[in-house]
Order: sequence, then structure tokens, then C-alpha cells
Amino acid sequence: MAEHTIIMQTTLQKLLEEKKYSTLRDILVTMNPADIAAIFDEMEAARLPLLYRLLPKELAADTFVEMEPEAQELLIRGFSDAELKDVLDELFVDDAVDIIEEMPATVVRRILAQAAPEMRTSINEILRYPENSAGSIMTTEYVDLSPTLTVAEAITRIRRTGIDKETIYTCYVIRNRVLMGVVTVKDLLLTSDDDTTIESIMSTNVIAVNTHDDQEEVAQMFSKYDFMALPVVDAENRLVGIITFDDAMDVMEEEATEDIEKMAAIIPSEKPYMSMTPFEIWKNRIPWLMLLMVSATFTGIIISRFESALSKLVILTAFIPMLMDTAGNSGSQASVTIIRGLSLNEIEFSDILQIIWKETRVAVLCGLSLAVACFGKILLVDYLILGSFAEVTMASPFLIIGVICVTLAITVLFAKVVGCTLPLFAKKLGFDPAVMASPFITTIVDALSLLVYFGVASLFLPI
Amino acid sequence: MAEHTIIMQTTLQKLLEEKKYSTLRDILVTMNPADIAAIFDEMEAARLPLLYRLLPKELAADTFVEMEPEAQELLIRGFSDAELKDVLDELFVDDAVDIIEEMPATVVRRILAQAAPEMRTSINEILRYPENSAGSIMTTEYVDLSPTLTVAEAITRIRRTGIDKETIYTCYVIRNRVLMGVVTVKDLLLTSDDDTTIESIMSTNVIAVNTHDDQEEVAQMFSKYDFMALPVVDAENRLVGIITFDDAMDVMEEEATEDIEKMAAIIPSEKPYMSMTPFEIWKNRIPWLMLLMVSATFTGIIISRFESALSKLVILTAFIPMLMDTAGNSGSQASVTIIRGLSLNEIEFSDILQIIWKETRVAVLCGLSLAVACFGKILLVDYLILGSFAEVTMASPFLIIGVICVTLAITVLFAKVVGCTLPLFAKKLGFDPAVMASPFITTIVDALSLLVYFGVASLFLPI
Repeated sequence: MAEHTIIMQTTLQKLLEEKKYSTLRDILVTMNPADIAAIFDEMEAARLPLLYRLLPKELAADTFVEMEPEAQELLIRGFSDAELKDVLDELFVDDAVDIIEEMPATVVRRILAQAAPEMRTSINEILRYPENSAGSIMTTEYVDLSPTLTVAEAITRIRRTGIDKETIYTCYVIRNRVLMGVVTVKDLLLTSDDDTTIESIMSTNVIAVNTHDDQEEVAQMFSKYDFMALPVVDAENRLVGIITFDDAMDVMEEEATEDIEKMAAIIPSEKPYMSMTPFEIWKNRIPWLMLLMVSATFTGIIISRFESALSKLVILTAFIPMLMDTAGNSGSQASVTIIRGLSLNEIEFSDILQIIWKETRVAVLCGLSLAVACFGKILLVDYLILGSFAEVTMASPFLIIGVICVTLAITVLFAKVVGCTLPLFAKKLGFDPAVMASPFITTIVDALSLLVYFGVASLFLPI
Repeated sequence: MAEHTIIMQTTLQKLLEEKKYSTLRDILVTMNPADIAAIFDEMEAARLPLLYRLLPKELAADTFVEMEPEAQELLIRGFSDAELKDVLDELFVDDAVDIIEEMPATVVRRILAQAAPEMRTSINEILRYPENSAGSIMTTEYVDLSPTLTVAEAITRIRRTGIDKETIYTCYVIRNRVLMGVVTVKDLLLTSDDDTTIESIMSTNVIAVNTHDDQEEVAQMFSKYDFMALPVVDAENRLVGIITFDDAMDVMEEEATEDIEKMAAIIPSEKPYMSMTPFEIWKNRIPWLMLLMVSATFTGIIISRFESALSKLVILTAFIPMLMDTAGNSGSQASVTIIRGLSLNEIEFSDILQIIWKETRVAVLCGLSLAVACFGKILLVDYLILGSFAEVTMASPFLIIGVICVTLAITVLFAKVVGCTLPLFAKKLGFDPAVMASPFITTIVDALSLLVYFGVASLFLPI
């Protein structure tokens, strides 16, 4: 697909240079807006307005919506007021809001000035909702029906007003703006008697979200109920907008990306990586790096405390990274599993005992098998092949290997239990569980595994 | 929502004990299938069949689809042949396939025996496609139209056959089974002239997927094009099925979970965490733990090589965990960002030079700020407050702190560059980039940071 885009771009560029505008137009109209936008985004800024003006009005608006903010801004700055108005008239309100959120203030003022009064009101209303709330991603263009309409009248109403609606397939039945029920076009088409009233076929078991609900919850409801659209109501159950499945998909993707970034100790950003400056990326990455670096002071202190012990048996130092990494990996396996389960609503805090019990059993299995494998590996590789224990005279090499393996098993157990409980407590206390992932767990587990290591070593070895 | 489920469950249980079946039924019919299924999944096995039989046929089938495989199997085993047939008749083919994939062979045979012959053929066809292919998640119940129909005839056809179709809103125009175009119910309803032919209003710019395309690509197409359904064609462009947005959403969620699991060194599983046994979880976690443990041999060897140097200046050991962790975190930030970008098709291999250049600049910013902060922190905390350098006589404490901070800056640079390039090369070579995440990067970066540490130390310190 990506290479296809590059080829297409070269063709278009050539046609543009040769001024074959009608051929260009013929090609573009066969394409999908998202594909045209991908090509336009890569075009030289100077060529963009000319190319864009070749598109017929509706395709132009659909393409505009799919483009990157940088290219959108460039185009808007080049538009005459009339051209801007034409684009705005074709946009859905939620798309207009998305664009406005990315534009500098001067461009926003121009957009609001050119938008039809009705759209301007809707835009301002949606902009008032907090970021990431259901209200901020909804659109106000839905089909509403009165409960007393007949099926035939409803179909007529849809035919008359449907062209400007984001979806016509789910219609909302309202009385005095209050949401009474939903009826789908499928229901309407499959009702054989045209005189049946909407009231008698509508479904009154309506699942709606509140304007202030979090967008993540909204996306979860789409994935649970398989809805095509979800109504958004205010505190008085009055219908104020709808959210369609395509916007829910975007939210799902965005939220998964956010979770992944948080798990990797990155402060999430809505901007795609390729269009971020190194300074912006630095700003999102440095806070956690700093915090985790400073908290490594604890591991430093622990090692310093055991400095004299370590200087007596330096070979113990060689296994510190392996112990810390294995414990860290074990812990992050558990934490990441729980974090994802919480995100998908598959796990909740009340499952905590069951989870700890399960992770304990997993940890015993993992710890034992790792300890056995580790014993074999050290014996074969480090003792026999590399001869790393040749200069050790203070204690039996087998005792030292034993200490390492026992430490491994214990730290894996600790790591798994810490890894599974921390995200659950974070959730319970209202923090974001995703932050309790690998880097955070690693820092705690590092200190734990050193303490266990030196504790076990002091117990069995003459240090 | 979860608490709401528990309360509902208690109410239902009480009503069930009191044998108030009609009240029970009255409550259940107002509920959404997904919510009923959530409650049923938590019910005692013995009560399940009775409760299930209270549901009206269609709601029963819709609820059945939403239930966990364990509960489904339990119900099927209790069904008479006639009951099983009733459920199957209400199911969509793709849902039936999903259920069959989770059932043991004996149950599968019963299902296939009771399914209508047409459904059986479709099920068998879908089961033939490789796992995770477009063919394996499609359904064969779509509305097809002949190009020569008029709008009025098409609407009549939809009204007649639509009840059994997964979606009626996107209709596929075919001639001799070959896909010619698509037409939506919106197009049909908004066409004012009933005698217009389908051919003249259909969109011929059809985006379709092949039966063997990967489901991840399919999900990406939904998120790119905002489709409600996507046609699936065979090698001869014959329409064989459709995939609807709700299935694409499930795939998106599944693929994100898989990526997250792989990034945490877990072998992905389709089973939810809460229904996996500790042994199953162990099987998914132990392979990477073993591999990463064994590969830590390298860090062990490096430390052993510098044993005598370390024994001269033991304080150097105290900073090994901080250096390794900070480098590991820096590397995984870069790798996870690139892996997610690749998954979302925002990044491709050809961007490699641009990415390395960007990460280099980010690394310089991160490395310098971390080094400065680290210098200050060691000076303040370790030197002044903790007095960790009190016994160091071999070299100036400032020189040692300098060595640590220079190492930090260099390893952050290495980590970021390794972190961003490995996933790109993995993708290029046809491996899964997600495997190149934190644990893998950490192992490489650990060894690198130790080499840099001892290298820089040997250069500037008398060891």
C-alpha cells in the first residue's frame, strides 16, 4: 500500500508538471478520500492548492478531513472565504471540531466566521466539553424522529433530511428533546405495514452515554455491544449528539497507543511520531527517565552496603544483571497482563485475591523451572566451559550456584506478586494502572532482588 | 457497570430461588444481550439452562453468542437437538464459526449435524481459511444485488431477504458472482427516482480484501476508510463474504493485546487471563524468560572480565543497575514507539534514516540532560549525604562521577539507536517487530552499557 502511494504520487506529479489537469482529475475521482489524502500529505506545499482544487466539492471535503493538520492549515490559509465556506458546508460537525482543535487561533477565527450559524453553534457547544469526554467526540448531526410518526412518514423524513446526517441507519426517537427509544432503518424497511407508528416498533431499551463520560468507556461500550452509533445525552436525558462507530474505532486505537506509551514510560502524545520534533519527543520521554534514574539510588545504596561482602566474593557481581533482568521481565509480564485486562474491563479490583493466588502458582512454576535451568546453565557454561569459578576458594562453587538459583526463584515470586498487585491498587486509588508497567516494576524489583540476593548469600556463604 | 452486574445477579438469583419465572423473564427482556451474557457467565452451572430457557428465541441466540465458551459448551450439552437447531438458525455464520472454534470435537459434530445444510456449507468453507485470515472472520450473509435492478426493486429485495443478513446497509452489486460495485441503503433511500438502475448509482471504486489477507490489515483498512463493512473476494474477484465493523473492532482489540503481550515477552493467547490455568499462563511466559535469562550470560562474562578492575574500585559496582536500567528504559521507549508506529502503518522501513536521525537528536537531548541531572544527584545524594565516596582513595570522586555520567550519556545514545532500528529490521526481514521490545532491547543494551562503562572507566581511572 505504501509503495503504491509512492508510485501514484510520481504519476500525479508528472501529470501536474505536464499540466494534464483533466487526466489528473479523472484519476483522482476514482480514488478513495483516505488514499488521496495520503498522497496529498506527501506533496510539495506549492503544488497542493492546485491539486486540491481539481477535486469535485464533496470529494474535496472528504479528502480534506483525512489530511494531516499541517496540510490542512496550508490549504485553509490559501482558501478564499468562499472556498473555505464550501469546504465547511460539506463537513460533519465532529470533523470540523477535530480540525479546529489542531489549528492556530487566527485560522480558528476564520473557520468560525465562515461556518454556517447552525454549525458554529454546534462547534462551540462541542468545544465546551472536556477533552476526551463523550461530548467532545460526538456529532450533532443525527436523524431524530417523533414517536407518533408512521413508518412511511419516518422514511420520508429520512429521505428529506438524511443527506446531511452522519448516519441515517440508527434514528433516535425523542419527545421534548428527551430520548425515548431508537429505531433502525432495518426495522423501518422490514416493517411491512407502512402505517405502524414509530412508537410501536422502537426499542426502548436504549443504551446511551453521558456527555461527560470518558471516551475510553464509550469505546468499550461499542466493542461490547457492537453498536453502529451510540446516543449522547445530558443530565436530563436529553439527546445532544451521537457518536458513530468510526470515531469509536479511532478512540480505541488512540487509547491502546496511549496505554502502550505509558507502559514504556513515555508521556502519551496525540501527535504521530513522524511529525513530532526531537524536542517534543524529548519532553515526553525525559520525565520518566529522570524519575527512574533517581530512584535507582536505592539499588546503589543496597550494593554499597554489601560492598565489603562483594569484594570478598566478586563472582557474585557477575550474576546481578541476570537476576535483576529476569525478575524485571517476570514482573512486567504480570503487570502488563493485568493492565491490559483492566483496560478491556476483563479484570477488576475485586478479583485481586484470585489474581494473587493465580500469579503465585504461575510464579512457583516459573521460578522453579528457571532455577533448574539456571543451575544447569551456570554449571555447564560458567563453571565448566568458561571456568568463571576457578579462582573461587572461599566457598564451594555449588553452594554459590545454589545461592544464585534460590535467589532467582524467590525474586521471580516477589516480582510476579508485586507486578500483579500494583496495577490493581493504582486503579483502586484512581491512578492510571498503565504507569505501573515494566519500568516502574523494574525499579522496585531491582531493589528487591538485590536484597534477596545479599540476604540469601549472607545466610549460606562466608561473607 | 461491574457492580451493577453483581447487584443484578443477586436479584435474579433471588427471583430464581423463589421461582418467580415470569418476573425474571420480564426483567431479562428489557436487557441487552451482552449484559445478560455477563450475568449468565457468573451464574452457577446448574441454574444456567433454566434461566436461559426463559429468554425468547431471538434474544436467547443473541445472548448465547456473547457468552464465554465454557458457558456455551455447558448449554449446548444440555440442549435437545431441537433446541440446538433453534439457536443455530438464529446465529450468523461468523458467530457460529467463532463458537465452533472453541468447542471440543464431539460438540462440533452435534452443531454441524443440527445446522441447516446451507449454514453447514458456509461454516465448513470459513473453517478452511487459515487462522487470522480475512476468510476466517468473514460472514457469508450479505445482501447482493444485480446491476440491472431498479432502486425500487432493490429495496423490495432488501425488505424480503434482509432479516437474515448481518448488515443490510451496504449492498454488493455482483454479476456472475464477480464484485462490480457497492451501493448503500442511504444511496437507495436518497435517490428520488425509483426507476434508476443500481448500475447507475453504484460506486465502482470498491475497496475489497482477499480471503487470505491478514486480519490485522483488514482492521487497519476499517480504521483508515471508516467502512461499515468490507467485501471479501477470492483470487478471481468473486465475492465470497463480508466483514463487518464490529468484527474489525474485535480484531483491533485482539491485535493490540497481542502486540502488548509480545512487547512484554509473553507468547500471546486468545484466551482471557481470568479463564487461563496457571499452567497455561506459565507456558506462555516461560520461553522468553528462559531465553532472556540464558542470554544474560553475556553480561556475566563482561563483568567477570572486569572483575579485578571492579575489585579495585568497588564503588563502580553500585552504579551498574542505574546505568543498565536507564539505558534499558531509553531503548524501550524508542523501540515501543517504533513498534506501535509500524502496527498502525504510520511508519515504514524506508523511513529508517529519518528515524535514526530523529532518535539520535532525541538521544543527545536525553543523554545530556540525564548526565547533568545524574552528576548533580550523585554529588548531592551519594557524595555529600550518603558519603559513599568516603573510602575512595584511588581516584578523584569527581573523576569517577564524570565517568558514570559520560557512560550514561553514551549508553542512552546507543540504546535509542538500537531501540529504533531493531524493530525496523525485524519488519524488513519478515519477523514480528513487537518481539523487539523492552526485554529484548534490555538484554542487548545491558551488555552494551557494561562495555561502555568499563571502557570509559579504563580510559580515565587507574584500574
